[in-house]
Amino acid sequence: MAEFLNGHMAVNEKGHFMFGGADVTELAKKYGTPLYVMDEALIRENCRAFQSSIERCYGGKGMVCYASKAFSCKEIYRIMNEEGMGIDVVSAGELYTALSVGFPAERIGFHGNNKTQQELEYAVSNGVGRIIVDNLTELELLEKTAEAAGKTVSVMFRIKPGIDAHTHSFIRTGQIDSKFGFALETGEAMAAVREATALRHVLLKGVHCHIGSQIFDVAPFAEAARVMMRFIADVKTETGIEISELNLGGGFGIKYTAMDKPPAYDSYMEQVSIVIKQMAGQLGVEVPFVYIEPGRSIVGAAGITLYTVGAVKNIPNIRTYVSVDGGMTDNPRYALYESQYEMLIANKASQEKSQTVTVAGKCCESGDLLGKDISLQTAEPGDILAVLSTGAYNYSMASNYNRIGRPAVVMINNGADRLIVRRESLEDLVKNDI
Amino acid sequence: MAEFLNGHMAVNEKGHFMFGGADVTELAKKYGTPLYVMDEALIRENCRAFQSSIERCYGGKGMVCYASKAFSCKEIYRIMNEEGMGIDVVSAGELYTALSVGFPAERIGFHGNNKTQQELEYAVSNGVGRIIVDNLTELELLEKTAEAAGKTVSVMFRIKPGIDAHTHSFIRTGQIDSKFGFALETGEAMAAVREATALRHVLLKGVHCHIGSQIFDVAPFAEAARVMMRFIADVKTETGIEISELNLGGGFGIKYTAMDKPPAYDSYMEQVSIVIKQMAGQLGVEVPFVYIEPGRSIVGAAGITLYTVGAVKNIPNIRTYVSVDGGMTDNPRYALYESQYEMLIANKASQEKSQTVTVAGKCCESGDLLGKDISLQTAEPGDILAVLSTGAYNYSMASNYNRIGRPAVVMINNGADRLIVRRESLEDLVKNDI
Repeated sequence: MAEFLNGHMAVNEKGHFMFGGADVTELAKKYGTPLYVMDEALIRENCRAFQSSIERCYGGKGMVCYASKAFSCKEIYRIMNEEGMGIDVVSAGELYTALSVGFPAERIGFHGNNKTQQELEYAVSNGVGRIIVDNLTELELLEKTAEAAGKTVSVMFRIKPGIDAHTHSFIRTGQIDSKFGFALETGEAMAAVREATALRHVLLKGVHCHIGSQIFDVAPFAEAARVMMRFIADVKTETGIEISELNLGGGFGIKYTAMDKPPAYDSYMEQVSIVIKQMAGQLGVEVPFVYIEPGRSIVGAAGITLYTVGAVKNIPNIRTYVSVDGGMTDNPRYALYESQYEMLIANKASQEKSQTVTVAGKCCESGDLLGKDISLQTAEPGDILAVLSTGAYNYSMASNYNRIGRPAVVMINNGADRLIVRRESLEDLVKNDI
Repeated sequence: MAEFLNGHMAVNEKGHFMFGGADVTELAKKYGTPLYVMDEALIRENCRAFQSSIERCYGGKGMVCYASKAFSCKEIYRIMNEEGMGIDVVSAGELYTALSVGFPAERIGFHGNNKTQQELEYAVSNGVGRIIVDNLTELELLEKTAEAAGKTVSVMFRIKPGIDAHTHSFIRTGQIDSKFGFALETGEAMAAVREATALRHVLLKGVHCHIGSQIFDVAPFAEAARVMMRFIADVKTETGIEISELNLGGGFGIKYTAMDKPPAYDSYMEQVSIVIKQMAGQLGVEVPFVYIEPGRSIVGAAGITLYTVGAVKNIPNIRTYVSVDGGMTDNPRYALYESQYEMLIANKASQEKSQTVTVAGKCCESGDLLGKDISLQTAEPGDILAVLSTGAYNYSMASNYNRIGRPAVVMINNGADRLIVRRESLEDLVKNDI
């Protein structure tokens, strides 16, 4: 048995895989499969790790906002509220879910490249803390919306810092080709700042950037901070406006497989904070209030998915297909990006991984795979397959393709399990059909 | 204005795009956007074209089964029933939907590489006409299930004919590497036939194959028919069993853009029927009862999606992003396969397509695009964008990523519109959250 991805995983005396203190083979029996299982202790631990970094590096002058598109449901917003986190939302649906459990509107940031008028009205009328404005069309619409509501709205501007973290070098033109945000190089961002100064119902508080996803290097984050600090100084020089908030977005990499080696989050925070403080001193601006927006790094490793193995098809000299009772409907990330996951047979966790197999879903689509060349214990019909690090962008991206209902979500808290999202029923699938 | 993809499209005196006799700009106002719009006349026309081919080529000794994973909801099953079609389903969810509107179980085929025990029980207890058995594990499970229910179940075996239609040559080993079906080359298929003869509750009626999707050549279909007829003859020789049904699956290509040139469906049918009759004569077996399973070719071109244009972002010397109020949540096919679609501004349909743009969705994900380098009329906020040929694998693959509700579906019948699937509400999004 290979080493586990994190300390919340173990094997019990029955040889069963334990996650968050629970025997997941038992959870599969109790709740059925496919099943998402999340570990509350790990989620809270991740929140606190980010918060303590902010405390240490900025003396608490900052806020950690959970990027809830990674995993959105009522219970996660309750947990984030208890942890004193902020959240970011990207639609009326996420905002509605958060507000429905009493999440404080002032700790919510609303993102998106194309928020609709209804969404802006909904956000303004509920007093959402920050709207992250993406473009001039939205800025003008927001001014009208706020005026009609008799409110003043605090905003940040989404800026393209011209950094593409995925090339492992700083190509400062690459990211200008993005649907998100105002470009720096073209003067678009500065022009938008000037335009904002003329508005009476929109208050420009901060600037925001986001350089990518699943990033393992600290350097591009530091470089983005440098670019953004320079822009804040330029704005002060050119317009006299003092931008007091800097939102550095998310994108912190997590460990999907043993091959992934993300640096400790604390080291991101520390190195970036050094850059921000140095730049502030050099440029003669205040150290801004800092926001970060981790999503995947809060919930990704804190979730696993359980499936029941069905047919096992050995095609001599080609490959062995292990089919499970879910697939691209509950986890489209292999179909979309060929994302790599680590897997094991939960009820055989103490056995050697002696097979290399392709894990297939049950959808009528040849692309419905969960992974190729997966190291696994010998799989037989009825076994429980656990796919690790599925806490982010699995439930939230799930579909009803093939009219397959979405799985339930169970939260574990130090071994005790509770249902947090019910399994979709056959009736649910036709509820809007006329 | 370029030529339209099919005869169900036109421009009216206002310069608005007409689909199925309806001014879709008006539909967007009436129902909101994003909106799926389907043309009932074209759907029925497509059903009848396949049926008349079967009538002409096989003297009616065959059945056209709509592959409902392409688009599944109550109303489509009602229409298929009225047209005297069969259907194929791939899950308990699709089966439940069809049965809920009284679709006759005997005209239903149940597919899938990993049907669950509950699904098999559900299908058997409802008297589903044919279960298309994928593997030995399923065969054994089905025998037990049928025995427990005191029933005899008619089945077909899914066979891999060893043909990969997508290589444009017949690589007879390629398709053996599939999660679906029994392999011919390895003797697996013949062994399964022998095993079936020993079963008392499972009756082997036919064999099934499916060689791929969106195929424009007739030749691979003819070659698949040849391989399958030879297998039917081999089965007769080696076991004495006369297989009386041949299911040739689907995969008929449709016109997504003006570049696509699918042959007339009738020519597929005719050329394949010639092969089947010749082979039957040569091999001394009966001409089997023939099934075909068109999905995309029934509904694909009969659907369009309407969006409202939001922000238009011109990045000098790079590209123009036109953002709309939907995206990968209602149409994940560009994100999954870079599928190409033709688009137009519905309220400017008589104007020249003078721009080349990238159409972006509203999801917080850079991969959320509907198409790159799209020829389009000049797009402005508030315009209605129509994406053509979205009737298949759009609504059925839609998700709630970003907690965005799925659009409504409207059916047009010679200009008259009616809602067939309601838009998902904010309440719907949290209905299973605890």
